[in-house]
Amino acid sequence: MTETSTLDPALAAGNRKQLAGYRAEHFLWEVKEGVATITLDRPDRKNPLTFDSYAELRDLFGQLKYATDVHAVVVTGAGGNFCSGGDVHEIIGPLVQLKAPDLLMFTRMTGDLVKTMRACPQPIVAAVDGICAGAGAIVAMASDIRFGTARSKTAFLFNRVGLAGCDMGACAFLPRLIGQGRASELLYTGRSLGGEEGERWGFFNRLCAPEDLLAQAQALALELAQGPTFANGITKTMLHQEWAMTIEQAIEAEAQAQAICMLTEDFSRAYHAFVAKQKPRFEGN
Amino acid sequence: MTETSTLDPALAAGNRKQLAGYRAEHFLWEVKEGVATITLDRPDRKNPLTFDSYAELRDLFGQLKYATDVHAVVVTGAGGNFCSGGDVHEIIGPLVQLKAPDLLMFTRMTGDLVKTMRACPQPIVAAVDGICAGAGAIVAMASDIRFGTARSKTAFLFNRVGLAGCDMGACAFLPRLIGQGRASELLYTGRSLGGEEGERWGFFNRLCAPEDLLAQAQALALELAQGPTFANGITKTMLHQEWAMTIEQAIEAEAQAQAICMLTEDFSRAYHAFVAKQKPRFEGN
Amino acid sequence: MTETSTLDPALAAGNRKQLAGYRAEHFLWEVKEGVATITLDRPDRKNPLTFDSYAELRDLFGQLKYATDVHAVVVTGAGGNFCSGGDVHEIIGPLVQLKAPDLLMFTRMTGDLVKTMRACPQPIVAAVDGICAGAGAIVAMASDIRFGTARSKTAFLFNRVGLAGCDMGACAFLPRLIGQGRASELLYTGRSLGGEEGERWGFFNRLCAPEDLLAQAQALALELAQGPTFANGITKTMLHQEWAMTIEQAIEAEAQAQAICMLTEDFSRAYHAFVAKQKPRFEGN
Repeated sequence: MTETSTLDPALAAGNRKQLAGYRAEHFLWEVKEGVATITLDRPDRKNPLTFDSYAELRDLFGQLKYATDVHAVVVTGAGGNFCSGGDVHEIIGPLVQLKAPDLLMFTRMTGDLVKTMRACPQPIVAAVDGICAGAGAIVAMASDIRFGTARSKTAFLFNRVGLAGCDMGACAFLPRLIGQGRASELLYTGRSLGGEEGERWGFFNRLCAPEDLLAQAQALALELAQGPTFANGITKTMLHQEWAMTIEQAIEAEAQAQAICMLTEDFSRAYHAFVAKQKPRFEGN
Repeated sequence: MTETSTLDPALAAGNRKQLAGYRAEHFLWEVKEGVATITLDRPDRKNPLTFDSYAELRDLFGQLKYATDVHAVVVTGAGGNFCSGGDVHEIIGPLVQLKAPDLLMFTRMTGDLVKTMRACPQPIVAAVDGICAGAGAIVAMASDIRFGTARSKTAFLFNRVGLAGCDMGACAFLPRLIGQGRASELLYTGRSLGGEEGERWGFFNRLCAPEDLLAQAQALALELAQGPTFANGITKTMLHQEWAMTIEQAIEAEAQAQAICMLTEDFSRAYHAFVAKQKPRFEGN
Repeated sequence: MTETSTLDPALAAGNRKQLAGYRAEHFLWEVKEGVATITLDRPDRKNPLTFDSYAELRDLFGQLKYATDVHAVVVTGAGGNFCSGGDVHEIIGPLVQLKAPDLLMFTRMTGDLVKTMRACPQPIVAAVDGICAGAGAIVAMASDIRFGTARSKTAFLFNRVGLAGCDMGACAFLPRLIGQGRASELLYTGRSLGGEEGERWGFFNRLCAPEDLLAQAQALALELAQGPTFANGITKTMLHQEWAMTIEQAIEAEAQAQAICMLTEDFSRAYHAFVAKQKPRFEGN
């Protein structure tokens, strides 16, 4: 009894975490004004993923679910490329020698990265320049919003390495982003999607000049981080939850979710600001 | 026994209604040649919704399910705007003071409007000019077909008032209309979608000059009302029913639904008209 | 024991078939380098479907599930048109006289064609020129990839003959190809979709000059047939299976499916070719 009375019950209830000071091992991690930027940072090899960086990304997005000091995330790559996917030497080489149970362990681990990206409440903005291939294309796909550049090349190239297009959820996600026919073509052929084509198809939300790309992605993320972040997290949850619901189920789920949001102070703040002809200041509660 | 023999069994079976003479209280309602036009009509405030107009719209669309004299519906707004959404003073003000059960009652009521719009057999054409915001954007979204204007501004602005984007089914509907990535951007940011962008994304089926907008929407509605209206209603039902089915389930459901349509006189009328090189006259049975 | 020892267990396990020598009765069938081309061939009537050609197509795609010598399929029409749909005299005439159980037998048979097109592992490329109407539009829709021409006219014209738009899965497929709003318009009105509009909407993956259409479709099919065909078949299966899954289910399903593909020789071939800076030669196992 005495112990629990010394705890902030709000913090205790959700096992909340502070992640601004997190020290990343396998990529760069920086938090500024509630916006975290993850930079894949092996530019000499176009920022491939390794077993280690996969696992650290998965764990970090898993922790973001409980973070109180990060309200939006930007994912990008260093040196003019986003990510070249699973490293041929460090990942594909070992994989060709594994047996079924170990392969399933690996494919489940990569899938778990997508799951934690979708399960954390922070909107994720991918800033995609240059090469965005394989698992890199998946990370972009699994983000909420994608900014690209005209020169970006996004390739779901699994087919080129003898694999199926069904990697980390691509056969479910990609049709919903760009339509079933266009998704089929990209997944069967592994061909690159150019920036302008990607914007036209709805894969990219916006094309930026390469030198502005990160700044624009961070500016949008900051705008989101200064918004009603609890409600934004509910938006993300519901976009996820309703994926395979009937319309009736979705409407009932939204009635419940929005009723929760109407109980927040942010909703009240917006109303009072509007009446006073002011801009609301949201606090995420 | 004697009683039932005096009833038209077809009318009795479905509890059919005549709605051409309905007298609307909170918006304009006009029926002409089987096409009903609903005009949100508080142009000085850009046609906001109130508790009363929400409820009346929900009830009216609920009755349309059984109407025999309305075969297509046009929804529009007076004075160059579609709808500014839930009225800040008449809806948002009261909501910030309510407790959870009453809030859920409200969000379920608004959700029920979308449900009745989707459950009635009449195709709904939204004619959208000017402001189309919040619940107004939802009404447009929940229609079957949308005509817009270049100057129209459609904003799912829930985020701007401290709420989540999950309102009345938006997280389920919008991704299916314009793709998951574009829907995410609109729902996270609350930004306005312009007319040309909206047409390019598939939100609008057509852009019209403002002065032609209503006439074009009504012309399409009339074309549909003069078509095989029973079959059109089945098209609407199946677009709704198959939302979350597997492909196999959808194909079986369509096999059954289309077999029913092949038993209608309209199917026979079309065949005989074709053989006689004439235009068929459909009667909706 | 002696008997089974004389069988190739791989062939026996899947009841594998050779289809290169198949002699089609109701359309043209040609297999070259693993690519089958089906040509609907009644050009004087724009290649309508009949009861017989429906049934033969359904059976042939059903057999393709077990074929070892066909790795991609092209579907096209003779004489500058794709397909005019169910023949008015040979199909619609008889249908208007049938009773419910027989009509359901027919609609299930046509639906089964779509089911077998989706269930076979070969990617299907539709090469669409000229008229592509009714059941013809469905065949194009049910293919994996569609190449069109600027002059092609694709019409889901069921509404024009007094029927509903829900034919052979259209209310499930079409929204996922081109978005719910555009699909609704096509299904309610039966209007023609032009080639350029179709490419813009994602119905067509590419527009070709009429004289190059078949060659381009066959070239893509050949590229796919020379790829990792086992993995391609898994891509097709998963695009199909995940249609109505939650994201979590899809990710787990892909983890399992991709783990199977990682056990293939094709994956190993690709890795070793990459290390040797060569182009991999896939063998589909």
